[in-house]
Amino acid sequence: MCEVKKMQKLTGKFGLIDQITRNTLINNKTTVLGIGDDAAVSDHGDLLTLVSTDLLLEGIHFNLIYTPLKHLGYKAVIRAISDIYAMNGTPSQLLVGIGISSRFSVEDIENIYIGINLACKKYNIDLAGGDTTSSLTGLTISVTATGTVEKKYLVKRDGAQINDLICVTGDLGASYMGLQLLERERIIYEKTKGPQPDLTRYQYVVGRQLKPEFPVDVNKSLREKKIVPTSMIDISDGLASELLHLCKDSVVGCKIYYEKLPIDQETINLAEEFNLDPSVPALNGGEDYELLFTVPLSLHEKVSEIKNVKVIGHITEKEQGFYLVSDAGTAIPITAQGFQGE
Amino acid sequence: MCEVKKMQKLTGKFGLIDQITRNTLINNKTTVLGIGDDAAVSDHGDLLTLVSTDLLLEGIHFNLIYTPLKHLGYKAVIRAISDIYAMNGTPSQLLVGIGISSRFSVEDIENIYIGINLACKKYNIDLAGGDTTSSLTGLTISVTATGTVEKKYLVKRDGAQINDLICVTGDLGASYMGLQLLERERIIYEKTKGPQPDLTRYQYVVGRQLKPEFPVDVNKSLREKKIVPTSMIDISDGLASELLHLCKDSVVGCKIYYEKLPIDQETINLAEEFNLDPSVPALNGGEDYELLFTVPLSLHEKVSEIKNVKVIGHITEKEQGFYLVSDAGTAIPITAQGFQGE
Repeated sequence: MCEVKKMQKLTGKFGLIDQITRNTLINNKTTVLGIGDDAAVSDHGDLLTLVSTDLLLEGIHFNLIYTPLKHLGYKAVIRAISDIYAMNGTPSQLLVGIGISSRFSVEDIENIYIGINLACKKYNIDLAGGDTTSSLTGLTISVTATGTVEKKYLVKRDGAQINDLICVTGDLGASYMGLQLLERERIIYEKTKGPQPDLTRYQYVVGRQLKPEFPVDVNKSLREKKIVPTSMIDISDGLASELLHLCKDSVVGCKIYYEKLPIDQETINLAEEFNLDPSVPALNGGEDYELLFTVPLSLHEKVSEIKNVKVIGHITEKEQGFYLVSDAGTAIPITAQGFQGE
Repeated sequence: MCEVKKMQKLTGKFGLIDQITRNTLINNKTTVLGIGDDAAVSDHGDLLTLVSTDLLLEGIHFNLIYTPLKHLGYKAVIRAISDIYAMNGTPSQLLVGIGISSRFSVEDIENIYIGINLACKKYNIDLAGGDTTSSLTGLTISVTATGTVEKKYLVKRDGAQINDLICVTGDLGASYMGLQLLERERIIYEKTKGPQPDLTRYQYVVGRQLKPEFPVDVNKSLREKKIVPTSMIDISDGLASELLHLCKDSVVGCKIYYEKLPIDQETINLAEEFNLDPSVPALNGGEDYELLFTVPLSLHEKVSEIKNVKVIGHITEKEQGFYLVSDAGTAIPITAQGFQGE
């Protein structure tokens, strides 16, 4: 299954990123921030320019059996811009590279771009360039998003302070459970060649997997309330992995609470059907496209007023480790599959 | 053969790009230039930000049988930054997305990054971000380059004026002939399982294919001499295709001269071995990573003083068409495989 396969590879991925980072020196004085955060940051005046890139490969990031091409294009945009929002920036342009094999028609590619253009319109960004090439194998999509942020509003991953509140937007694990469901139904469908599966009971989780949105209203509310998070990251590889990222970069520990994890009822129901504790998809699922951020304790009331934001715990000293506290008060160490934590 | 396959697909590619362009509206006032030139341009103050992205797929853009991974990384950088130079800009950052299958080792990926880092150092740019993911099939590399240019120095594809001189840098067709040679020797080697082929007679063309450089000194000389070309494009898909691009965007015609085409002796020798007229790789080969630009006729002397720049013809009225004039004075229409010219 795609997401699981991806996870198995994460150990190598993070190891590689670490190796690369070690060998990378900064040559340009305009480069404010290089590898290691959500987006690269360059300084060309009052505004910082943000750039982020993602690679989406058929069979790894999507399965065309249940992914309509229009949705794939839409999701590719969400994936790219979530990195810009995660730096507290505003996305402005999108560049798309597409590798297509001969089994795709012009109409297929048009459908991908219909989805891309829909998302661009909704999120007020411009499709501003790209590269189209033939491919010998599957469909490959690279998405690069650019954006800007005023210097004083830039939020990185390394600013979380002890006692800061840990906040997440929306709910977690739905996209992962949606994928589990689609995969299960695909296998049944392929074996039995019966009727197309009825997914109406699980519209929410399937929608989260196939056509996610980004909680851009939260970014706006933070701005309106003059809240600048101390650290921020988008949740694309599961809460556990992202939280450990934040903590590692900020050199702090964390404590989050099981009962505070925002999980939709449909996710809970489906997790139970799969004999999974709902915290599993919430912590280790992927593709939530939500925000994880920290704010000073003094902003508790202010941040709690924002719709779709939930405080799930707080930052501790590094030596206290990374823990999920159960309803019964048991502290369970947080680990992320493949994350090279300390 | 990779490049030929790529060319066969170009008809569809250009058709698609045209379709996409038609459906793309600009949403942001910072977006100065969207799809259709070498790089996207956004305006964030005194300096314009340039962003360009390329997708490199195994079996289409490179064959690992004769492409060392270090060279592949180096070439990926050249490919990306050539788009920034082609807007008369200076590249500053690079973002790299890599999709790797299980047949690659960590050392393989390190080798790609050794090449990337070497090129970054040489061209004074920063590897500032990226994405690493597993792949079910071959190696996929996406490269995104960012750069800047002062507003007054930005050069697009649409500014060529009637009587402007058409200039190219370096020499043309060598990379294409290098690829033909490598492909021929690969086939022989695979059939006979004999000794590794001896390519020392053709070091230049093989080097142009495997480890190209960009004529950055020409950009510098143009700046020093205060020459701002009226239009510019990098030659990555062959002179004919790029020239037709410039002419189409500038709504002009062109006349270039056979005897003026800059072709290295090794390219000529090898073309003859392959029973090709040397103008074929020069006009329709790919991956030259040279610049094609136009300047006003009044700058003839000044531009001719620049090392590695050759005037090959001039811009005409659109109605006069696109022609290559042979040594005997015959005018041959210029066509690019797959280019949807007028």
